[in-house]
Amino acid sequence: MTSSGYARRVSGDAHTVRFHDPQIEMAHGAGGKASRRLIDTLLAPLLLGVDHGPLGDAALVDVGRQLVAMTADTFVVRPLTFPGGSIGTLAVHGTINDLAVSGAVPKALLVTFVLEAGLPGPVLEAEARAMGEAARIAGVAIVGGDTKVVEHGKADGMYVTTAGVGVPDPRAALSVASVRPGDRILLSGPIGDHGTTVLLARGAVTLAADLRSDTRSVWPLVDRLLDAAGAGVRWMRDPTRGGVATALNELAHDADLAVILQEEDLPVRDEVRGVCEILGLDPLHIANEGQFVAVVAPEYADRALAAVRRAPGGEAAAIVGEIRQSPAGAVIACSSYGTTRVVDMLVGDPLPRIC
Amino acid sequence: MTSSGYARRVSGDAHTVRFHDPQIEMAHGAGGKASRRLIDTLLAPLLLGVDHGPLGDAALVDVGRQLVAMTADTFVVRPLTFPGGSIGTLAVHGTINDLAVSGAVPKALLVTFVLEAGLPGPVLEAEARAMGEAARIAGVAIVGGDTKVVEHGKADGMYVTTAGVGVPDPRAALSVASVRPGDRILLSGPIGDHGTTVLLARGAVTLAADLRSDTRSVWPLVDRLLDAAGAGVRWMRDPTRGGVATALNELAHDADLAVILQEEDLPVRDEVRGVCEILGLDPLHIANEGQFVAVVAPEYADRALAAVRRAPGGEAAAIVGEIRQSPAGAVIACSSYGTTRVVDMLVGDPLPRIC
Repeated sequence: MTSSGYARRVSGDAHTVRFHDPQIEMAHGAGGKASRRLIDTLLAPLLLGVDHGPLGDAALVDVGRQLVAMTADTFVVRPLTFPGGSIGTLAVHGTINDLAVSGAVPKALLVTFVLEAGLPGPVLEAEARAMGEAARIAGVAIVGGDTKVVEHGKADGMYVTTAGVGVPDPRAALSVASVRPGDRILLSGPIGDHGTTVLLARGAVTLAADLRSDTRSVWPLVDRLLDAAGAGVRWMRDPTRGGVATALNELAHDADLAVILQEEDLPVRDEVRGVCEILGLDPLHIANEGQFVAVVAPEYADRALAAVRRAPGGEAAAIVGEIRQSPAGAVIACSSYGTTRVVDMLVGDPLPRIC
Repeated sequence: MTSSGYARRVSGDAHTVRFHDPQIEMAHGAGGKASRRLIDTLLAPLLLGVDHGPLGDAALVDVGRQLVAMTADTFVVRPLTFPGGSIGTLAVHGTINDLAVSGAVPKALLVTFVLEAGLPGPVLEAEARAMGEAARIAGVAIVGGDTKVVEHGKADGMYVTTAGVGVPDPRAALSVASVRPGDRILLSGPIGDHGTTVLLARGAVTLAADLRSDTRSVWPLVDRLLDAAGAGVRWMRDPTRGGVATALNELAHDADLAVILQEEDLPVRDEVRGVCEILGLDPLHIANEGQFVAVVAPEYADRALAAVRRAPGGEAAAIVGEIRQSPAGAVIACSSYGTTRVVDMLVGDPLPRIC
């Protein structure tokens, strides 16, 4: 997850509890500004401690003779299935991807369910089968889990949580502190497929667009990238809730640098662009479940892009922008007409329960 | 947890999908026979694979230079708070305890929330604070997590999932295959406190009983036990949903031996016995959240019991029975009057959403 997930990286600056929102709203789960506030001002200081540092997609934990990466995500997507995937495949891929973009080889998953009483047995069977299959394809073992049941009317069929451990890949040396002006922004493929697909599957709008979720493990792409340009990869993120815009805003904030995007270089399918135009949404804010965004040193950019493009499913990868010194903390998109706009984090929750 | 949680131990006998229940019922989450069926005939074969072996409280995973223990649990207890604890403390202790009874030193936790829109901010703050505090007291780091929000009317305020990793303790050599006739059953303290406390807190019955949940980390007790008698400890379990009866039935089944309990040696508070008598429940079926049950070789039994009793909070520990050759697969309770009864696994769900 990008921004509603959180994981301790290193010790650092102090926080105190200063969350004063009177109640939880849908926006607190949308991955944008409200999610960030909930995490930064309440959950992180109370759970991770006041001396936690920058938050990432996975935490590194010392377990004796080995560092392991750990991450967990909960999925509440509606509907449970949609073109290209389902809550189960999303849960498997989401946790694998958080490990992958943290530079860790995904190793093992735990799966827990909250099931709604009355859920048809075959629906659960289909999801369990899809999860087992997704894990096998990704080469990751599901090693355990838990199941709870709540009364009919709660839990929308099922909620799924996955937790995963991985082993830090020695080819990866990721650190937001290593990001420099001139570094390139690499995007693994077209954005917005997942969020718009779920929106259409929910029937919120009736559009006949041929869209499929991009849910997949990004590890094979990350593996190729690290092989070709590991020493040049500075930072990676899984742009799920809040989209690429939110991930890059967090990067700009944490690195205290500017992210400059070239709007016409962003890979966006026509169908996604169409849905977004009709609904007044920005594809940069739409959740992806099978993409990553990476910051790559300029001298590694060509070989990094070539390596990802050569990998199956990476054909549409693109360099979409670069890091500059200023305006520090901001993400700016430049159009081919010479205009620029500030790309903010997601505000509110235009697409609830997309993952 | 005992029986609704599941984790791969080693490779073993084959399973196939043969779950034919038409829909999910509350009993599938109660930790008893229906939970077992759901896991054995659907979730374990599809998620863990058809060659998974006996299921335990945590899975051992090879992460390179180190074996780690992994476990995850979801909590849906109603009400969110009750005398002695809350959903947050339960979630922290439950995962710590699954690691502890698997012979692993608990190291790090991940925490994910499903929050209901409209949940008052201070309620979330209180739970996050309680979780942070419980983890600090237990000496375990919370290192990350995730948050999702669902619409008002769903999720009863919040559901919490915790995942944990631990490091196998070299003093522990647990294996159900090592259990032998003559081994003693050690119970760490009084049973039934948690389940009856939640039942009363829910107002299902109006009884003025002075009861508190036993929610706590059992690691300090397990630590003492392993120190004094590690080589003699054969098997441990965290008797949560389904209670001591369900844990011991799983032991009897997996070991293909008999468990003989001495009814008068079972530590049960008068208040718990009273509530159970009124409601027609057996304290052996009631969930515990701060106890463990262990099988100890007879020559280690005295020092094991003495070590646990000397530990703070272990004063009421007791040897409550022993392993015999037959009737294989059964748990039998003997009364002081010379009568015996078969103690079955929990059937149905008399105490829904106790954890």
